[in-house]
Order: sequence, then C-alpha cells, then structure tokens
Amino acid sequence: MNLDQAMRLAMKEALKGAPFVSPNPRVGCVILGSKGELLSTGYHKKFGEAHAEVEALKSLTFDQLKGAHVIVTLEPCAHEGKTPSCAQALARLPIKKVTFGLVDPNPLVAGQGAQILRAAGIEAEEYQGDLKVGLEETCEEFLWNQRYQKVFVALKVAQSLDGKIALANGESKWITGHESRQKVHELRAQYDAILVGKNTILIDNPSLNIRQPGIQKENKVVILDRSGEILKIKDQLKIFQVHKPENVIVSSCPDLETVLKEIYHLGIRSILVEGGGQIYSSFISQGLVQRLHLFTAPIILGQGIGWTDKINLPHIKNKIQVDFTDSYVTGTLSVTKR
Amino acid sequence: MNLDQAMRLAMKEALKGAPFVSPNPRVGCVILGSKGELLSTGYHKKFGEAHAEVEALKSLTFDQLKGAHVIVTLEPCAHEGKTPSCAQALARLPIKKVTFGLVDPNPLVAGQGAQILRAAGIEAEEYQGDLKVGLEETCEEFLWNQRYQKVFVALKVAQSLDGKIALANGESKWITGHESRQKVHELRAQYDAILVGKNTILIDNPSLNIRQPGIQKENKVVILDRSGEILKIKDQLKIFQVHKPENVIVSSCPDLETVLKEIYHLGIRSILVEGGGQIYSSFISQGLVQRLHLFTAPIILGQGIGWTDKINLPHIKNKIQVDFTDSYVTGTLSVTKR
Repeated sequence: MNLDQAMRLAMKEALKGAPFVSPNPRVGCVILGSKGELLSTGYHKKFGEAHAEVEALKSLTFDQLKGAHVIVTLEPCAHEGKTPSCAQALARLPIKKVTFGLVDPNPLVAGQGAQILRAAGIEAEEYQGDLKVGLEETCEEFLWNQRYQKVFVALKVAQSLDGKIALANGESKWITGHESRQKVHELRAQYDAILVGKNTILIDNPSLNIRQPGIQKENKVVILDRSGEILKIKDQLKIFQVHKPENVIVSSCPDLETVLKEIYHLGIRSILVEGGGQIYSSFISQGLVQRLHLFTAPIILGQGIGWTDKINLPHIKNKIQVDFTDSYVTGTLSVTKR
Repeated sequence: MNLDQAMRLAMKEALKGAPFVSPNPRVGCVILGSKGELLSTGYHKKFGEAHAEVEALKSLTFDQLKGAHVIVTLEPCAHEGKTPSCAQALARLPIKKVTFGLVDPNPLVAGQGAQILRAAGIEAEEYQGDLKVGLEETCEEFLWNQRYQKVFVALKVAQSLDGKIALANGESKWITGHESRQKVHELRAQYDAILVGKNTILIDNPSLNIRQPGIQKENKVVILDRSGEILKIKDQLKIFQVHKPENVIVSSCPDLETVLKEIYHLGIRSILVEGGGQIYSSFISQGLVQRLHLFTAPIILGQGIGWTDKINLPHIKNKIQVDFTDSYVTGTLSVTKR
C-alpha cells in the first residue's frame, strides 16, 4: 500500500467519527508494517475518548511495530488533554516514520507533535501530495473553528431542478426522494446543531431530529424568531416534544453574526441551516456560508419559493461562486397527472 | 467481444452521425468474425449516403465474412430508397447471424428486414438485453417522428445552481463555462433547427449558428414573434446576417402546437429550444417537451429570471417528473467581489 492509498484510507476512517467527535476534529490513522503491508486502522470515535493513533495501535504488538509507518490525517497532538499526548505515546514505540496530513492548526502547538517524534529518532513528515484539499475537508469545521473562532456554517437545500424549495402555497413534501432524505439524517449528525427560521417551524411543524439507524444522538436546534411567536405556541410544536428543553434554542436577535457569536459561546461549533428561503438568502448574501449541501430532485415545480429569492445581485460578475464545476445532465420528460 | 459490448460500440458509432443524417435515424453497426473478434465498425454518415451496415461491410472480404455476426442498432432496411436495401445486401453474404437493436418503427415494414435475412438462411434476432433504453435514445427523434408524425422537441437550458437563466436586468453572459458552451454547439448540430422567442433575439442579439470545429453545417432557426417586431428591425440583428434568408423562419402564430405542425411540414423534424423563460415554460406546461438538456453552472444568482417562471402547479403531486435520479453535490462557497 503506497502513501496516497494509506492516506485515503485514513481519511475514510476519519469520517466514521463524524457524529460524535465535535468539537474535536475527525481524525483517521493507518499503520503500515516495515514492508508496506497494512497492519491496522483506527479513528477518533468520540469526544473525550481515544485518539485515532491510539485506536490504530491498540491491536498491535511491539514486534509488529518495528519499522512501521504511521499515517495520520492530522499532526499527532503534543499536549496532554482529555487523553495523553499521542506524539509522546508514539515516541516510545519502535516505529520508523510518521506522516501526518495537516499541521495542527493551533499556532501555539503547530509542529510540536512532529518535534517530539524527531527528538525520539522517528522521522516525522507533513504529507505533501494531491489529497491536501480532501484532508482539509476531512476536518473542515475544526480548522474553521481554530482559525477564526467562529461557527462553521453549512447549508442543506432540497430543491427541484428549477431551484424551488416549495410551491407558493408552502407545500414541500417531498421534493427529494428516499435516499436523499436518508443522507440528510447523516448530515444532521455531523453538525452540532440545526438552524431554521420560524416560518419553517410554523409551516412544516418538523421534528428536526436524527432518524438514522446506527446513530443515537440527541441533536440541538436553533430557531430564529424575531417575532416571539414560536414560544407562545410551544405546546403545538413537535420540536418541543421531540427534543429536551435545553436542546432547543430560540433566538430573537435579528442579526445573524450576533446569533452565531451567541451560539458559539454556548459551545456550538457547527450548524446545518435547513431553511427556509429567507434564512438561506440571508446567510448567503452576508457571506456566512462555508459549505453547501445541495439535493436536487429530478422534478420541475415552476412558480414557487426559491432558496435565493432575497439575494439581489446587480451584475452577473457579482455572482456567488460555489467550488464545483459545471454539470450537464440530459433527461426525458414525463408529465404526471396535473 | 460479447453481444452487449458490440451493441454498445454500435451505439457509440451511431452517435457519430448526429449532425448530418436527419430525417434518417442515427444507426451504427459492428461486425464480429466467426470467433467473436472485432472485424469492423460503421455508421450512417449523411442523409442519402450509405447506411451503417454498408459502411461496416465495405472494408471486409467475402472470406472474412464467413460465419460473421452483424450487430446493428436498428433493423436493416427492407426497402429500396435512396440507397439499396440493406437486408438484401446482407442476405447475399456468407454471414451467420444479424442482431438488431430495435425493430423498424414503421409498422408497414417492421420485421420485413428480418424476414429477408431468414429467407436467405441467416439467423436474425432482435436484441433483448439491458441496452434497450439506450438504443431507443440513439435514434429517439426518428422514432418520435415515425410514431407520431410530430416534431421532436428538446430544451437546452443553461442555469445557475438556483435555477436562474438571467438576472432581472436580462444579463446572462456567461452563466455556464467554456466546456458547456462547446457542448451546446454539438447539440445544435444534432437537431434540425433552433427555436427561440423574440425576447431572446432582442435582448441577446445572438447568432445561433454552429461554431464547432469539425462540424460544417448551416442550421435553421425558428423565431416566435407574435408582435412582428423582429422583421421590422431585421437589419440590426446578427441572426439575419449569419444565416441564409431561407434558414430563418419567423412565426407570428401564438399557438405552439400549430407552429410545430407548420415547421414539420417545412421538413423540420427536431428542434432545440434555447429560450427564453416564457418559451421554456410554455413548452413544458403544454407537455410538448421530449428531452431536457440542462447545464448547471456552479454559481448562485439569487433574484432573476427562471426558466419555469410561467409554470403554475396547484400541488406538489402535479410536479413534472424528469427521468433522471436525485443528485447530491456538496461544495464550498466563495464570495467574489460584489
């Protein structure tokens, strides 16, 4: 197994930790034997529990580790925190080399993990290959938090081919199919909280919990409601039945940046914004979005509510660029009964 | 090479004829030797010239054809037309078997090609595998024309991620990137004519010709203009400079079905509708579209002109289904200078 293959496998491992590691980063680790053979894999499973390196090491003997190569998506931690320092743990082993995908983003400890290893006679190298962008994405919320001390904002939009999230009458069940709806529950688990506007609550009366077998997680919900309507009719709303009171945060602040600061102080490090159109538009036009998850159903809805209706650009040159390329699809049309 | 591989190759060959065979179907042919080895390929290149079977046969010797298997996307023609009957030509050869993808859609001659072959002691079989839908698509305009004696209508839409084809001020250059625009020229060549509404002409002053190296073709353009404005300002419009007078048809008829009948009688068998929003909406809501070519640029435009703004559906259950599946993309956002 070569380095790129091992790093790709480590990234895949890292993602398995998605629902439970926040505010820690998702990290994966792969250990190769002295002949390049795969010895073990591991990932950080849950905040406060063992780091990826320790998970990968735990099934291996001292003999197996002689001359081994440890590949890990993020620089091994130098400091003792909830768990012992991974760099120090590795330094005591007969391994030959550690390759880490990214340097620790915290400038105060960046490079210290590598130093500890080198001091123990172990090669320690930052990965410099083609997977760099993917490595950043593997723990993008963590990197964002570390670099800017801000909430990482992702948007989840379920639209028709023509960009509508509902008909003018508010009807939106179901725009996307079963598989997309399953994926939404995985996404919900990946972020610390879901954020929605009050209209989404009033029109759809959603539960906004995680309904995905294998993911047992109580998630948080943030509701933006300047009007104060939501709290008055609490008893009629599913969201207050499904979630514990402390997990539903209702904010009446009209300024999004202030709301984000408030929830950051509450310990929320990443949110998935689930609508509606006004909320999407506000986040986008204020430049507050880091990632867009776009589900497009193969249907045409015509007139209705779009997810960008409140964004007003003067010229095409002011367009908002999203980092994937043009797509081209071709399909036949069938008109269902109207 | 097995049958599915050969049929797939024949379909690929067929598509090479796209710009020049109308009103004939696109047809491709593959010939395998008695041991299943690939002997040759061929496709119908141009209306009035040799059919695919003849193209595939022309480089082969009588000896090579002993026990050969001819795979062709459409049943070999039984009748003498502009060219001699392919079934009769094949019947004189020492081939073992002919497999054809589709039966001739003309009920008057369907199965006759196969009969001629069987009478000569050659096995003749309709293909029954997984590629049936693809085979129909290979010559879908022809099948539609034969079955319904109507113009085949395709839509080409270039939209932003949020379903916009222009800003409210009409600005639309360029929504999609270079590659998509190249593909548009290929599409133009595939259809007998381009159809646009008068607003597209007045706002964009487009040429609507085929600018693709390797495709030398004078295409036709149909302009819908109830108002009569277009003809009054002919001299200022590029379209009348770029195209020969007989290739630009201006219709003032307000009824789309009537327009389609009129141009069918003029020999136009397929059109590519290129906008604008009103025209797209009318074609879709009247159930007149057979194929949608949708180009989506990775940009957000917000308020603007959609391609379905005039479609008004009462309920989600009335949605217009397009035959490709849900898509999910994820991307990061960057805000260009605004």
